[in-house]
Amino acid sequence: MKIALAQLNYHIGNFDSNTAKIIEAINTARQNGADLVVFAELCLSGYPARDFLEFKEFIGLCEQSAQQIAAACEGIACIIGTPTPNKYKSKGGKDLHNSAYFIADGKVQQVVNKALLPNYDVFDEYRYFEPETEFQCVEYKGRRIALTICEDLWNTIENPLYITRPMDKLIEQKPDVMINIAASPFAYNHDEERIAILGNNAKRYKLPLFYVNHIGAQTEIIFDGGSLVFGSDGNLVDELPYFEEKLAYYTLNDDATVTPAQPATLMPERQSDIEQIYQGLILGIRDYFYKSGFKQAILGLSGGIDSAVVCALAAEALGAENVMAVLLPSKYSTSHSITDAEDLIKNLGCKTETVEIKNITDAFETALHPQFDGLPFNIAEENLQARSRAVVLMAMCNKFGYILLNTSNKSEAAVGYGTLYGDMCGGISVLGDVYKTQVYQLAKFINRNSEIIPENSIVKPPSAELRPDQKDSDSLPDYDTLDTILVEYIEKRLSSAEIIQSGYDETTVRRVIKLVNTAEHKRYQTPPILRVSPKAFGMGRRMPIVGKYLS
Amino acid sequence: MKIALAQLNYHIGNFDSNTAKIIEAINTARQNGADLVVFAELCLSGYPARDFLEFKEFIGLCEQSAQQIAAACEGIACIIGTPTPNKYKSKGGKDLHNSAYFIADGKVQQVVNKALLPNYDVFDEYRYFEPETEFQCVEYKGRRIALTICEDLWNTIENPLYITRPMDKLIEQKPDVMINIAASPFAYNHDEERIAILGNNAKRYKLPLFYVNHIGAQTEIIFDGGSLVFGSDGNLVDELPYFEEKLAYYTLNDDATVTPAQPATLMPERQSDIEQIYQGLILGIRDYFYKSGFKQAILGLSGGIDSAVVCALAAEALGAENVMAVLLPSKYSTSHSITDAEDLIKNLGCKTETVEIKNITDAFETALHPQFDGLPFNIAEENLQARSRAVVLMAMCNKFGYILLNTSNKSEAAVGYGTLYGDMCGGISVLGDVYKTQVYQLAKFINRNSEIIPENSIVKPPSAELRPDQKDSDSLPDYDTLDTILVEYIEKRLSSAEIIQSGYDETTVRRVIKLVNTAEHKRYQTPPILRVSPKAFGMGRRMPIVGKYLS
Repeated sequence: MKIALAQLNYHIGNFDSNTAKIIEAINTARQNGADLVVFAELCLSGYPARDFLEFKEFIGLCEQSAQQIAAACEGIACIIGTPTPNKYKSKGGKDLHNSAYFIADGKVQQVVNKALLPNYDVFDEYRYFEPETEFQCVEYKGRRIALTICEDLWNTIENPLYITRPMDKLIEQKPDVMINIAASPFAYNHDEERIAILGNNAKRYKLPLFYVNHIGAQTEIIFDGGSLVFGSDGNLVDELPYFEEKLAYYTLNDDATVTPAQPATLMPERQSDIEQIYQGLILGIRDYFYKSGFKQAILGLSGGIDSAVVCALAAEALGAENVMAVLLPSKYSTSHSITDAEDLIKNLGCKTETVEIKNITDAFETALHPQFDGLPFNIAEENLQARSRAVVLMAMCNKFGYILLNTSNKSEAAVGYGTLYGDMCGGISVLGDVYKTQVYQLAKFINRNSEIIPENSIVKPPSAELRPDQKDSDSLPDYDTLDTILVEYIEKRLSSAEIIQSGYDETTVRRVIKLVNTAEHKRYQTPPILRVSPKAFGMGRRMPIVGKYLS
Repeated sequence: MKIALAQLNYHIGNFDSNTAKIIEAINTARQNGADLVVFAELCLSGYPARDFLEFKEFIGLCEQSAQQIAAACEGIACIIGTPTPNKYKSKGGKDLHNSAYFIADGKVQQVVNKALLPNYDVFDEYRYFEPETEFQCVEYKGRRIALTICEDLWNTIENPLYITRPMDKLIEQKPDVMINIAASPFAYNHDEERIAILGNNAKRYKLPLFYVNHIGAQTEIIFDGGSLVFGSDGNLVDELPYFEEKLAYYTLNDDATVTPAQPATLMPERQSDIEQIYQGLILGIRDYFYKSGFKQAILGLSGGIDSAVVCALAAEALGAENVMAVLLPSKYSTSHSITDAEDLIKNLGCKTETVEIKNITDAFETALHPQFDGLPFNIAEENLQARSRAVVLMAMCNKFGYILLNTSNKSEAAVGYGTLYGDMCGGISVLGDVYKTQVYQLAKFINRNSEIIPENSIVKPPSAELRPDQKDSDSLPDYDTLDTILVEYIEKRLSSAEIIQSGYDETTVRRVIKLVNTAEHKRYQTPPILRVSPKAFGMGRRMPIVGKYLS
């Protein structure tokens, strides 16, 4: 049997484009002699469709797409993912299942529903779907297929999140092969985990395994592809490319071995975290603009490392000609900041404008003079600068149709080192899931072939330049220390006592955690953040705003 | 048996204050001869504690509080709600249960776990908790208590959301009484639904029912109390007050009738939606400030109805002396706007300042002249005004420690009729779940005894005053039509075809729905919105930002 894996980039709610893309892949696969082409989980709707799933009209359009695809399936079978009405609804439960359709001979032959519904981090599947409790293999061309959906194969033995394991039921029916359709978001450590967990499944059940993932970004959630094929010994037969679409073919031989029809694209070695983050962010920016119907990005360029990295990423993702980098110097801006920014623009070839903000902040201070007279310069005046810049950038968005890229990094977002409605503005946050120490690594990666980010932006001490001679280190621990504490608290959810015990200074730890906790109200209002780590701010981390935090 | 119901206002994560409050109520109940005092669901942690529940330290502190409370339970029993480790974890599943402790003689006698976990709208319980599958009544002083937690009694017969009904299991053990501890958020129609569903349970199982709810606001989620006591005929015996704390006593007689120890506080008639919304918003503002440790609010007063209503609500919630109303006239502000705002300030007695923004917007336009030269006045210049006002207000927050109140209403938030980083700023949105037509009703309710909101703010045509002679009706349908379409789309999730079919103009419907859909990116960055309806923007409505919307 010849099986095609279709690793495609879908667009949530765009039924015309998703359906056309799927039918095109079916036609190509048929021309290439495939018996079966496999698409990803919920490919008709895109993932995650969120509360679109609560609209009956939306579910109806998914079914319409499925029927169009079925009609195109003459002489070939396919597997697609789509939401379907809960078949047990008369007994109660949620309205929907997260389903796979097995389609052959122009119609839906069998419906398989997901049993294990992820409902943690960015996942909300139990909000919409009723879990399946009965399991039946799919018969096709003399083969018995154990078809499962993503998390169904993810109930790890060490710390099972669910009380059932669908494959333990399906294996009783003596299947010949496992197929898993997935929507498994990118995080820089996720490829290795995926290969390990899926390989263990192949080995445990002694079956070849075909696994198809999405690629493409859906606002903050990025899918990296990397669809996988395993032999029944658990060894990797093939690994589809990361961050790009691909249609690949395999022969499932009678002895249950698998032969790729094209040269296997197994990675010779794992990509570094930073290279993966780089590619994920490029895809995240590109799809955010493309799927929103926008082309042109704008950002404020300070001469510092964060905006320089965002500018370089945007130029790569959108083309330098579609990036407007605006210099917004104030009286506290240093001359090296301006020259560093200019050097970057020269290296990238993007568009640029300069708007001085001194007269604007003066106008605010004059207008507020009756209220502020006699009071010392403080954070109010500092923030006036950041907010004046944001107003200028947003005015340019409104006038010319740009989308503003936010340039805050995860370390700043964590400790609230940023101005709400100032540098925290933007349509999408590019680095909000990238710690400052990783931003430096990204800069070096970007410069791997030639200097794009000016060396001076990398080596100079970071500063917000909102008052004379300001340095980040005036108010924050050094970033190596800060980032390690943040990972312990945010990613690992350790208590201050545990972090202190592992060797960090008590005062620093308590101060950092307090800063993180008191910035919840700021993070609530930040733009969506491209997610590249296993624990990003946003939908994946839901903390109370008004609450008494431990510290 | 004498049963006390403790309807209290908890603070998420504030173990000291929650525990002290619970122990104080236990001591008072003991002095008043109670055998058992019942507290609300997850009262130790506060509700919703969200991802606090993923911190082991947090769960440990819940257990510490429970042990302190147990030690105080000599000569009296109590029921408290707390998260506990999943007792089935060796079989797999989530880490926690949502539990009730039955405490007597100084220790936890029995643990009851929630079976039905709400995971819709604002609820995320399946993110943290494993559902219970086994059920056991609590024996105490010769009575058998069917103890359940909130949603466990909420599986309505018409459209059951779950496949089990815990009371159907518990009734087999022949209990004498039902007790339900809850965290049931306020919505203006929720009190009647609660009475109907719980009364049906009492009648169906022929048992008296004691139901204890939270009161108090947790950022956007407001709890209204209204704890309930039913006879075994399903008739309401008592209804605790709404929006206030209360400790009330009842005798459960040997014949299963229930006698209140104090005069029953049954509502003579249901409060109007608007009166409930009014009280909910007052509590929401008050608790947001109190629980955040802030006292002073600031807002921009335009002379229009929305900011007038927010100002009046804030003055009622915080005291007029804690409200700073700032007039921020531009060259497009009409003279009646200024006098209307001044009349309101006089009526309320709150603090006021005036900051002219003309020189500020001029400074922006001058700075942007090289870029904007020759281009027509458009939304860029309109938004400059809204954003300049926000920067002034935020500067005053930073200088004086105010929290900015957002004054956008739900109709505006729905159609994106507001400026991101302008009038969409604030720490909390007071009216973001109140449609414009309801804002007018609120104004009339506020004026029920005497004119507080100037009549002119109520009767004049609404305008953003961002260009000469602008009216809301230039760009939006009249608010009666708009709000009805919005309810059909947002609350009822109908399709445009269904809404058109019910008699609305096709062009208008399609335009409104398109406006709603294209404003998702704006709503993502708005402040938390005090929730007073069954479907508020925010955590309860999760739509993709980048997606192709139907229209």
